[in-house]
Amino acid sequence: MRIIESVSEMQQQADLWRRESRRIALVPTMGYFHEGHLALMRAIRDHADILVISIFVNPAQFGPGEDFERYPRNLERDLGLARGVGVDAAFVPTTGEIYPEGYQTFVEVKGITQTLCGKSRPNFFRGVTTVVSKLFNIVKPHVAIFGEKDFQQLMTIRRMVGDLNMDIQILGHPTVREADGLAMSSRNAYLTSDQRFKALRLSRSLKEAQDLLDRGERRSDAILSRVREVLAEDGDVRIDYAELRDPHSFEEVPEVTGPTLLALAVFVGVARLIDNCILHLSS
Amino acid sequence: MRIIESVSEMQQQADLWRRESRRIALVPTMGYFHEGHLALMRAIRDHADILVISIFVNPAQFGPGEDFERYPRNLERDLGLARGVGVDAAFVPTTGEIYPEGYQTFVEVKGITQTLCGKSRPNFFRGVTTVVSKLFNIVKPHVAIFGEKDFQQLMTIRRMVGDLNMDIQILGHPTVREADGLAMSSRNAYLTSDQRFKALRLSRSLKEAQDLLDRGERRSDAILSRVREVLAEDGDVRIDYAELRDPHSFEEVPEVTGPTLLALAVFVGVARLIDNCILHLSS
Repeated sequence: MRIIESVSEMQQQADLWRRESRRIALVPTMGYFHEGHLALMRAIRDHADILVISIFVNPAQFGPGEDFERYPRNLERDLGLARGVGVDAAFVPTTGEIYPEGYQTFVEVKGITQTLCGKSRPNFFRGVTTVVSKLFNIVKPHVAIFGEKDFQQLMTIRRMVGDLNMDIQILGHPTVREADGLAMSSRNAYLTSDQRFKALRLSRSLKEAQDLLDRGERRSDAILSRVREVLAEDGDVRIDYAELRDPHSFEEVPEVTGPTLLALAVFVGVARLIDNCILHLSS
Repeated sequence: MRIIESVSEMQQQADLWRRESRRIALVPTMGYFHEGHLALMRAIRDHADILVISIFVNPAQFGPGEDFERYPRNLERDLGLARGVGVDAAFVPTTGEIYPEGYQTFVEVKGITQTLCGKSRPNFFRGVTTVVSKLFNIVKPHVAIFGEKDFQQLMTIRRMVGDLNMDIQILGHPTVREADGLAMSSRNAYLTSDQRFKALRLSRSLKEAQDLLDRGERRSDAILSRVREVLAEDGDVRIDYAELRDPHSFEEVPEVTGPTLLALAVFVGVARLIDNCILHLSS
C-alpha cells in the first residue's frame, strides 16, 4: 500500500492509473476506522481497479467549540486496517497541504444543507463539500462511496456532484451497526459505558417509529412524540433534533405517505451522535 | 468543428481525447466574438492538441437589473469565426442544461472577490467561479485561458484552481485593444459613436497614470485624481471605481512601490466598461 502525503504526487499517480485505463475508487474518511469504514472499502473494491482511501480530519467542517482538537486519531492502526482490506493507496495530507496560508475558496450546496445538521452546525456542509471537491480533484476517482449514517451528507454530495457536473459515480452504503444496534461512529469513543448504553435509544427509537407506522400511525407528530419518548432526555441525553423529512427535498412532512427520512441528532455526554432510517409504509 | 450541446456528450468526447493522450485546451466565452476572443483561441492552440471553446451567456453572473437579457448574441457568426481559427469543438449548452430545475450549488472565492467588480456586482464572481468549475468538469481541459482585461476574474480563477486543487493550467492573455486603444469587449456594442469616443478616456487614463509615475509621482491619491480628471464624469460617463491595488491581494496601496494594478470600471451610457493595467516603476 502506497502512503501519499503530497497533492502533486497523488495527482501524478492518479494520472498514471487513468492513462493505464484503471478505474479509481475513493473512500474519503477522517480516520479512526471502525467496521463501517472497512465495509465502505470492501463494498467499493468491486467497482474499481484501484482502491484509494483518504484520511484527513478536516478542520473546515468543525465549528468553534466543536471537537476538532479531540477528534480521535490513530494513523498507524488505520493504515494497518486499510492494508488488511487491500487498499492500494492512502492519501494522508497535512492540514497545511490541504489549506495552505491564504486559502479562500469554498464549495457550497444551498437548499438541502440549511436544515437538520446544517442548522445545528452552520459551516459543516460547506466544509464537507469543499474538502470532498478537493479530494476529488486530487485523487481523480471514477467512483466514491459514503455511508448512509450521514444521510444528509450523502445527499449533499450527490447534489454537488450533479450540480457541478463532476463525472464521478457516488455510492451510498447502509449504516453499519454494532450487534446491539448502535450505529458505528468514531465518536462512540467519547462514550462512557453508561452513556454507551443510553446511546442505544437512537437505534431503538428508529425501530419504534417503523413499528408505529406498521401499526397504522402515519401522523408525523405522533411518530415523533413516540421517538422523543424513547430518546428520553436526561442528564446524559439531549435531543438536538428528531425530524421526519422528505428524503430528497428535506422538507418536513406532516404525514408519512411514502419513503420518509427519520433523522436524529442527540448529544450523549460530550458526543453528538446521529442516526437515521428511511421509514417505509408496509406493503 | 464539432458542435456539442449536451454535458454528457461533451464529457464522453473529453474522456476519449484523454484516453488518446491528447491535451485539451478550453477557451470559456459568453460569445459575440471580437478579436480578443480569437486571440485567446490562437494563443492557447499551441499549448494543446485539441482546442475547445464554450459559448454560454451565464445568468448566474448577472445581477438583477443587469444586462443578461440584452447581452449581445450571434451564435452563427461566432461558430464561423471559431471554425476559421481551427477550433475542434464548440460546447454550446442551453441554460437548462447548465442550471437544471433545483440547481443549488455554488463555488465561491472569498477574499479577493469582495472588492472592485465584486463590490459593484455582488454575485458576479460567484457566478463566474461556479460556471467555470462546471465547464472544467464538463470539458476536462488540461489548460484554459482568460483575458487580462478581466484581471480580477483571472486572478479569482487562478485562486479557485489553486485552492480546489484543480489540475488545470491557467493562462492569462494581454488585453486586446482597438487601434485607438479601446479595450475590446462585447459590451462595446452598446455604445453610440459619441459614447464610443468618450470610452477612449479609459485607456487614455491608464496611459496618463503610467506617464505620471514615470515622471516621479508615486502617491496613489495623486495618480488617481489625475485618472479621474481624464475620465471626467459627465452626462454619458459615470465612474464606478478607479483604484490602485496590490495585484495579488487586491489591497489598496497608498503609494506605488512595485507592480501595481490600476483598475477602472466606468459606465458609458448603458455600458459598464472595465479596463486595467499594471503600473511599473521605470527601471
